[in-house]
Amino acid sequence: MCYKKHFDKRNLTMLMDFYELTMSNGYFSKGMDEKIVYFDVFYRKNPDGAGFSIVAGLQQVIEYIKNLSFTDEDIEYLKNKKIFKEEFLNYLKHFKFSGDIYAIPEGTPVFPYEPLITVKAKAIEAQIIETMLLVTINHQSLIATKTNRIVRAAKGRPVMEFGARRSQGYDGAIYGARAAYIGGVIGTATTLSDEVFGVPALGTMAHSWVQMFENEFESFKTYAENYPDDCTLLIDTYNVLKSGIPNAIKTAKEVLHPLGKRLKGVRIDSGDIAYLSKKCREMLDDAGLTDCGIVASNSLDEYIITDLIDQDAKLNSFGVGERLITAKSEPVFGCVYKLAAIEDSGEIIPKIKISENTEKVTNPGYKKVWRLYDQNTDNAIADVITLAHEVIDNTKPYIIFDELQTWKVKKLTNFYAKNLQVPVFLNGELVYECPTLVEIRNYCQNEVKNLWSEVKRFTNPHTYYVDLSKDLWTLKQAMIEEHSYK
Amino acid sequence: MCYKKHFDKRNLTMLMDFYELTMSNGYFSKGMDEKIVYFDVFYRKNPDGAGFSIVAGLQQVIEYIKNLSFTDEDIEYLKNKKIFKEEFLNYLKHFKFSGDIYAIPEGTPVFPYEPLITVKAKAIEAQIIETMLLVTINHQSLIATKTNRIVRAAKGRPVMEFGARRSQGYDGAIYGARAAYIGGVIGTATTLSDEVFGVPALGTMAHSWVQMFENEFESFKTYAENYPDDCTLLIDTYNVLKSGIPNAIKTAKEVLHPLGKRLKGVRIDSGDIAYLSKKCREMLDDAGLTDCGIVASNSLDEYIITDLIDQDAKLNSFGVGERLITAKSEPVFGCVYKLAAIEDSGEIIPKIKISENTEKVTNPGYKKVWRLYDQNTDNAIADVITLAHEVIDNTKPYIIFDELQTWKVKKLTNFYAKNLQVPVFLNGELVYECPTLVEIRNYCQNEVKNLWSEVKRFTNPHTYYVDLSKDLWTLKQAMIEEHSYK
Repeated sequence: MCYKKHFDKRNLTMLMDFYELTMSNGYFSKGMDEKIVYFDVFYRKNPDGAGFSIVAGLQQVIEYIKNLSFTDEDIEYLKNKKIFKEEFLNYLKHFKFSGDIYAIPEGTPVFPYEPLITVKAKAIEAQIIETMLLVTINHQSLIATKTNRIVRAAKGRPVMEFGARRSQGYDGAIYGARAAYIGGVIGTATTLSDEVFGVPALGTMAHSWVQMFENEFESFKTYAENYPDDCTLLIDTYNVLKSGIPNAIKTAKEVLHPLGKRLKGVRIDSGDIAYLSKKCREMLDDAGLTDCGIVASNSLDEYIITDLIDQDAKLNSFGVGERLITAKSEPVFGCVYKLAAIEDSGEIIPKIKISENTEKVTNPGYKKVWRLYDQNTDNAIADVITLAHEVIDNTKPYIIFDELQTWKVKKLTNFYAKNLQVPVFLNGELVYECPTLVEIRNYCQNEVKNLWSEVKRFTNPHTYYVDLSKDLWTLKQAMIEEHSYK
Repeated sequence: MCYKKHFDKRNLTMLMDFYELTMSNGYFSKGMDEKIVYFDVFYRKNPDGAGFSIVAGLQQVIEYIKNLSFTDEDIEYLKNKKIFKEEFLNYLKHFKFSGDIYAIPEGTPVFPYEPLITVKAKAIEAQIIETMLLVTINHQSLIATKTNRIVRAAKGRPVMEFGARRSQGYDGAIYGARAAYIGGVIGTATTLSDEVFGVPALGTMAHSWVQMFENEFESFKTYAENYPDDCTLLIDTYNVLKSGIPNAIKTAKEVLHPLGKRLKGVRIDSGDIAYLSKKCREMLDDAGLTDCGIVASNSLDEYIITDLIDQDAKLNSFGVGERLITAKSEPVFGCVYKLAAIEDSGEIIPKIKISENTEKVTNPGYKKVWRLYDQNTDNAIADVITLAHEVIDNTKPYIIFDELQTWKVKKLTNFYAKNLQVPVFLNGELVYECPTLVEIRNYCQNEVKNLWSEVKRFTNPHTYYVDLSKDLWTLKQAMIEEHSYK
C-alpha cells in the first residue's frame, strides 16, 4: 500500500466516539442494521479565511477501512459496560465494512459544503466509521492546506517542515509530514516519515552541536569534515555577524575548499531575520561565497515569509516548524459527517438537518460534485453539487446560480466537467489504486495552478462558485419548508 | 505499565529529527559519544497568557525510553543514506539508553524556565531522545493545561471531552483524552482512551440518530428504551423549543416514567445556548422534570463557559470538543531541549546559549527546581531554580530576588521546600513507579488548589515567582559577560 515500511500496525477500530457504539446497538435492537444510508463528509469554512482547502488523508482512510475489525479484547471491554446486547456484540465480532465509499482524491483543492467523501452503507457500518474518517481527513487536510499557503508565500523558494517537536502527538508529526509534503514542502525533519512514506528527510544542526565543542569554529569544522557534500551551518548560537558568519566563512575556506567542496548554506534561527540575512549575504558575497544559501527558521508562517520577501530579505529557503505542523493560526479543520439519505424499499429518501445556525443546515440527498474547467485555459470556473443521478453535459451551456441570492446567475459555455469523486470501495472491496505520494504532490501543485489567482489571495480571496444544481436546490427548499415551525 | 490494554506497540525510535542522527554520527566520529552531557526540557511562556501550566506525558516518555531500539530495517534505511559511518550504525544496532532522567511528576502546575525534565547521559543518548521527549511533553502538557482552564471555568460543573474528530491525528485524540483527564474532565467520547487508559467513555447521540427515524419522538423513544438508566437526548435536530423539548418531555413521561426511570438530560448543540437553556429549564421544570440536566456543546471553551455562567444559563454540564482537543486559542506548547552542561574529567562545565532575543538565553549548569510552600496554608509561595548541589534549608529564612530587577527582594520564612523533580531513570534503569491516572488527576487538582487565585486568573494573572538562586544567577551573569561581543 505505497508504504516503504509497514510501521503503523495499530488497530484503530476502537478510536471512535462511544456514541457510535450506543447508537449502533440501538439500530441493531430495532432491526435497522441492514438499512442502507448515505453520509457525506464535508466542511463549512476554509481555515484562515482562505479561498480553498486541500483535501488529504484518503490513503489512511483506506488503510483503516481495510483493517477494521474488533478484537476479542475489544468485545470483552464492551461486554463489561453491561449496556450492549449480546447479539450486537456477536455482530461486532464478525464486523466487516461492506459498503461503498466515493471520495475526492488527495491533493485536490476543495471548497465548503462539497462532499469530500460519500459513504453508502448499512446503518451501523456507516455510523461506526464516522470518527476515524473525520479525524483522518480533518488532520491531514488541515496541514496540507496550511502548508500550501506557506509554500505559495515562499514564491518558489524551498520550504522544509521542521515541526515534529511541537506537533500534537506522534501522529501529528508522522502523518503531518505526509500532509505537508502533499501541500508542497520539499522534505521533513521527521526521519520516520521518510522511512515510512518517503517524504525526504532533511536537517542541519542544533545549537547543542555548537555548544558541545570548545568553540564555534571547532564545531563547524567537525560538521564540515563529516558532511562536506551537504553542509549547512547554524550561525546564531553566540552572535550571527560577529561570530557565526566569520566562522562559517573560515570553515568554507579552510575545511571545504581544500576538499574541493562548497559551503551549502547557513541557517539563522533568531534575531531580525530580514536585517541579518542582508548582512550575511554581503559578508558571504565579499568572501566569494556567492553560492552559499541562507536558510531562515524561527516561528515562520505565510505572513512572515511574505513580509520577509517583501523587505527583500536575502533568503534562499525556509525551515518552518510549529506554525505549519499545528496550523497555529487556525488549528481545526471542521469536517462533519452528516446523514444525507436513507433507502426505503430501494428508494432513496433524502434527509436534512435543520438548525437555527443557517450555515449548519445540510444539503439533502445522495449527491455528486462536479468541477467545470475552461476549455481553453484549464482554469477551474465553478463547482456544482448535483443529485447523484444528474449528469452535466459538456456540450450544452450550463446555468449556475447562487443558493441564497438566486438572481445571481451565470451561463457557462466552452467548459468541460469533471466528476470530482472517484469510487474507492464498492461492496466493501477496494477498487481504487492510491497514487504515490509524489504523484499526489504533483497533482496538487497542478490543480492549484488551475485556480484563479483571485481565489488564492491570503486575505479576502474571491469566493469561488460552489452552486447547487436546480434539482438539488429545489429539493432542499422543499425540505426546509416542510420542517419549518411557524 | 498502568495500561488496561497494551495498545500502542509502535516502535517510535525513528520519530526523531534527522539532525539528531547526523549530529550523533558526528559525535561518534570525534570520539565524543561517551561524553556525559546535561540537557533540560523547559518552556518559555504559558499558553494563553496564563499564570501557570500543567505538565503531562511522563508515562509515555518512560514507555518510549524503555522501548528505545533500532530495528534492522531502521539500520538498513540509514545505511542507504550513505552518510553514516559503519561503526556508528553498528553502535546504533546495540543502542540502549543508559543515562539518568529526572522529571517533575505529571499533573504538577509548572512555570516558564523550570527544568521539567533533566537528562544526564552520554552525548548521543541524550541527543537521540530530544524529539520524542519534546513532542510527548509538549502535546500532553498543552492539552492538560487548556483542559484545566476549561474545567475551572465550569466552576464545579462536569466537563466532558468530545473532540476526537477534530484532533490533530489519532494520537491527538488518544493521548489527548488522557491529558484532558489529568486536566480535570470527567471522561471522554474516545472509546479507545477508556479501553487503554481507563478515561471513562461517555456520550449521548448524534443528529444522525434522530434523522434515522420516522420522527424525533420515535428516535427518542427508541433511545430511552435501550438506555433507560443513562438517557440524554439531543434536542436540536429540528427545533429545540418547538420540537426537541416537547418530545423529550413526552419521552420521559411515556417511556421512562412507566419503567420507573428518569430522563437524565438533554443536550443543546446549536443556537443561543444561554437563551435556549433558560427556556428549556422552564419547560422541563413545568413538566416536573426538575432533575433532568441540560448539557451544552458547540465550540465551547473557558471564555464562552464563563460568559454562559455569567449570563445565568441553566447548564449542568459541558461537552467540549475542538477547542480543548487542539487547544485552539494557542495550539503550541513551546518546550525546548537545551544543553546545560558537559562533564570534562568528572567536572561539570556549564554551557549557555546566547541569543539576540533575550528570552532565548538559557540557564546554564546542572540544576534543580524547588517549590516553597507556606507552612500554615500549604499555598505555593515561590519556585527557585538552583544548581544541583544546592539545598534549600527549611529552618532558615530564604531570600529570593528577581533575575532582571534584582532590587526586587523577598525574604521567606515559615515555609517548607520541595524538590520538584524526582528520579525516573538512573543508569538506564527505571526507578520510578507511575501513579495511576486517577492519582495523577487528584494530585493535579490538589496542587492547583494550592496556587494563589491571583495566579489562576484567565487574563492578566499575577506572575508567580520563579527565581534563580544567588549562585545560579551569578554563574549566568558571568557566562553572559564572557560571551558578549563588544
